Amino acid sequence: MIAVHLESKRVEVRKARRPQRPEGFAVIRLLRGGICNTDLELQRGYYGFSGTPGHEFIGEVVESDNADLLARRVVGEINLACRKCDWCRKGLGRHCPKRSVLGIVRHPGAFREFLTLPEANLHVVPNSISDEAAVFVEPLAAACEILDQANIRRGSEVAVLGDGKLGLLIAQVLRAQEMEVHLYGRHRQKMRIAERAGVETILAGKKTPSSAYDWVIEATGSSEGLGEAIRMARPRGTVFMKSTVHRPVAIDAAPVIVNEITLVGSRCGRFEPALNLLQFRRVNVTDIISETLPLSQARRAFALAAKRGVLKVLLAGES
Amino acid sequence: MIAVHLESKRVEVRKARRPQRPEGFAVIRLLRGGICNTDLELQRGYYGFSGTPGHEFIGEVVESDNADLLARRVVGEINLACRKCDWCRKGLGRHCPKRSVLGIVRHPGAFREFLTLPEANLHVVPNSISDEAAVFVEPLAAACEILDQANIRRGSEVAVLGDGKLGLLIAQVLRAQEMEVHLYGRHRQKMRIAERAGVETILAGKKTPSSAYDWVIEATGSSEGLGEAIRMARPRGTVFMKSTVHRPVAIDAAPVIVNEITLVGSRCGRFEPALNLLQFRRVNVTDIISETLPLSQARRAFALAAKRGVLKVLLAGES
Repeated sequence: MIAVHLESKRVEVRKARRPQRPEGFAVIRLLRGGICNTDLELQRGYYGFSGTPGHEFIGEVVESDNADLLARRVVGEINLACRKCDWCRKGLGRHCPKRSVLGIVRHPGAFREFLTLPEANLHVVPNSISDEAAVFVEPLAAACEILDQANIRRGSEVAVLGDGKLGLLIAQVLRAQEMEVHLYGRHRQKMRIAERAGVETILAGKKTPSSAYDWVIEATGSSEGLGEAIRMARPRGTVFMKSTVHRPVAIDAAPVIVNEITLVGSRCGRFEPALNLLQFRRVNVTDIISETLPLSQARRAFALAAKRGVLKVLLAGES
Repeated sequence: MIAVHLESKRVEVRKARRPQRPEGFAVIRLLRGGICNTDLELQRGYYGFSGTPGHEFIGEVVESDNADLLARRVVGEINLACRKCDWCRKGLGRHCPKRSVLGIVRHPGAFREFLTLPEANLHVVPNSISDEAAVFVEPLAAACEILDQANIRRGSEVAVLGDGKLGLLIAQVLRAQEMEVHLYGRHRQKMRIAERAGVETILAGKKTPSSAYDWVIEATGSSEGLGEAIRMARPRGTVFMKSTVHRPVAIDAAPVIVNEITLVGSRCGRFEPALNLLQFRRVNVTDIISETLPLSQARRAFALAAKRGVLKVLLAGES
């Protein structure tokens, strides 16, 4: 089979052995993979990563002890937890200190013809969800995580900063919960995707309002975003931090303290609400796809995904 | 009368007019004032402040329309709110956007023989609380604010970073709520004060534990404290930000996001719980006093308060 390999900032497509299946694991044939900003950061060498990246995928189960999974289309939670520690017992395996993470930490990723994951990580994808939509379940779950972390009431005004892939998903997820979502971005074209979901968009460059929102979601992917988000939050407001920036972020602590603002780090989420949103077509994810390329052209796909203005680039499994 | 005056980083004691009493205000004769780190920052010129500082005080009401206040010993909430806006209606006048702040923003401070505050800001001090203890009500209320912002269960392990004045108060307040408090500091002498209240103390220099606490209070007053606090918090843990540092603070956003840590800015608090703690002798504040000097020696007092190792320096009103 072929597999994408990252090393020394290079993306290669190599021949590799089809993976063995440890007990409790399934072997999955890749249908679609999605290139995420984290993959681009792995490529840039920020985490000393080498190996096969990829954690957004939909695939078909080709080997499993579980008959309910065999030959089914699945998506998979990316954290491989120990299933024994306190975190795992609380159902929070995604914070298990012993976890490995698909395509990020000590478990080869999804950008290969066949991948493995524990059967317990897999969710069968309803037939009504296309491959192209299902590949968004993982980032959509990350967007939904905000709803698990805070009780934001219907009708609340929420500012989302950043019109990248994650910002567009978050804006739509919050809009689907009937919040008044204001998306601040820089790309008219990208923001149209959110507008079609009923999100109000504001082109950056205009002065952003100060102390204007009880809820601000920072998803700019830049190190300046957090300071801006803090400035836009009202006293006692909450800022969700969604941009993993690899450089240290300088913030002015004084307004956080004086205005008693809460900053909430927010990462992966449960897959169920994301699958629900897709099944009932409450969000439009396929408009976020800029291009789909075969797995064998991963190098080109990574280069494309890194370009300004490009949204989601998919890799298609070998058919 | 005499009044302390800050200007161009200089502390002077000047003759000044006894203040007029606007409607709804009381005139208060200063008994004791406490020099806070914020006062030292005002002196250093960080906020372009000039005028009379001082927001920690106890005084005696000498003029008021309210007979219940006349001749009584009082402490006063420092935020002078508009009493009309949404914040004020919610009882959160300390976030009123139109507020002035005693000795900090557009209202002359307490370090003068006679000061003014709205009668609504005043709390009568029970006879059982000495002047020396009552002057701590304001910083003690700031320490208590943590209890209003989060529901930390009895018996929870809480780390407090910093053995300065505020750190010692916070450690004692949390201990009085029967939490297991671990105070991390640099001064054996200062930490003894918290030890006597049943706080476990850990001298810094030893490696601090990583991912060890659900609750961490950052009160170091330094720009490095926040990163350390984040490192010590467990996944899904909460860090309270209590250090107003005037320089930008550089943090690594990645662990905040990956571990879904919540950072809570925390400032002033309600006076009632602080008065309660003092009345029932649940905290020991007078050990935190390093020295008391007369108002006329404010310059010396400010210089002393800025010295390493010195805790609270009080100013005594003219008798």
